[in-house]
Amino acid sequence: MIITSDKNELIKKIKKLNNKKDRYESGLFFVEGRNNVNEVLKSKFSIRYIIISENYNNNIDFDLNRIIKVPDNLFKKISDTVTPQNIMAIVRIPRYELNTIIDKNNVYIIADEVQNPGNLGTIIRTADAFKVRAVFTINNSVDIYNPKVIRSAMGSIFHIPVVNIDDIDELMNRLKKSCIKIYSTDLKADQYIFDFKISNNVAFIFGNEAKGVNPMLNGYIDGKFKIPMTGNAESLNVSITASICLYESQRQRLIK
Amino acid sequence: MIITSDKNELIKKIKKLNNKKDRYESGLFFVEGRNNVNEVLKSKFSIRYIIISENYNNNIDFDLNRIIKVPDNLFKKISDTVTPQNIMAIVRIPRYELNTIIDKNNVYIIADEVQNPGNLGTIIRTADAFKVRAVFTINNSVDIYNPKVIRSAMGSIFHIPVVNIDDIDELMNRLKKSCIKIYSTDLKADQYIFDFKISNNVAFIFGNEAKGVNPMLNGYIDGKFKIPMTGNAESLNVSITASICLYESQRQRLIK
Repeated sequence: MIITSDKNELIKKIKKLNNKKDRYESGLFFVEGRNNVNEVLKSKFSIRYIIISENYNNNIDFDLNRIIKVPDNLFKKISDTVTPQNIMAIVRIPRYELNTIIDKNNVYIIADEVQNPGNLGTIIRTADAFKVRAVFTINNSVDIYNPKVIRSAMGSIFHIPVVNIDDIDELMNRLKKSCIKIYSTDLKADQYIFDFKISNNVAFIFGNEAKGVNPMLNGYIDGKFKIPMTGNAESLNVSITASICLYESQRQRLIK
Repeated sequence: MIITSDKNELIKKIKKLNNKKDRYESGLFFVEGRNNVNEVLKSKFSIRYIIISENYNNNIDFDLNRIIKVPDNLFKKISDTVTPQNIMAIVRIPRYELNTIIDKNNVYIIADEVQNPGNLGTIIRTADAFKVRAVFTINNSVDIYNPKVIRSAMGSIFHIPVVNIDDIDELMNRLKKSCIKIYSTDLKADQYIFDFKISNNVAFIFGNEAKGVNPMLNGYIDGKFKIPMTGNAESLNVSITASICLYESQRQRLIK
């Protein structure tokens, strides 16, 4: 299908997917770039349309009726990036069932009001690298399907479940029922991270960039540890903190 | 001093500091926000001017003749951020002597063509947290004094030396003379990072976001290791890789 006008209803709908509200109303989000589109094609995610600009020349293994070709200038208008990669996929927002995700012998991440999309995306990418079972977002974190989150996650959003949770109590109770210990980092904690057994059956909570972990979560937390910092910086970026916890967990699994 | 016109020569000069070329011609860069300006004031860096917008009301311990007050709309024009914090400092680019920085019993970072300013800034912030002695940039890395680097470094640029190096051979030879081992990460390395003794006397090279470490550096490298990844993500963000190396180095120092 070829569309040339930005007044086309479908194009107008796609352009709106930059807004969170429109994403959830339509149940759709978009990903850009060849690598990302290949990742969706390999995944169980359901693709509604693939949009290509007129000078995209590679083969795509997808239903031809739902490949939409648009002029370059129109592609630029719907793209979220400054230098568009000439291909994007319009994808259905998946639904996950908590009882199929939460189980023993796994590591989880809970992002508590993480607001910078680059940080959340990097956490998802790192979680995927260290085989985390799922990433949960709670308390007004940036939307998982924000284009900048998708971009920094580098395809990992299609490898592991990333799920926004409204009922925090239900999430925490399910984790506890599966014998998953819930830990957070705290600059003022007494013990270092490597003094904790975190090789498996753990969920790490990482908090907001400015405020840290929400005090309302304290009742769920089994332990707090600190990352040893001996220099002058007061704190670490939240995605850095997450990566160090995941590395330490991985290290403990491997040296067992 | 009060300046109200954006045609003022000083204001025109300050606006130009967004460009690398102009920064090095004038020998100046700028930092924004109260925390950053406080960090410069506490440091040995030399401040040329402090610019405040008319509704900035806090005390500043600085030569009154070099505090410049400008109207809000003019401050917005010279600021690099969308929501300016109403204070910025114009700072001299420092000069460092390699022989005062490179010594035994230290950890170093070499950023090799790291191009994303957020990545370099985060590496500097993390290096500061783990007491790295200095960060060197080589091979066309993003400029240290790029406003976005300064912003992600969160003041750490004023705590540890961050130095761009043109003569790579000199840098490497000085490191080797001080018995500093030079390591890099490699996805295809045989050994894991925790099998290397990296508690001290090490320099870590981190490469370009897409290409990795420049092969021209192979001759200087004493060893390559990998970070254990068991999931689906193909690689880690460069600032994440750096933080894991620095954490592992710190962990080895502390458990000794």
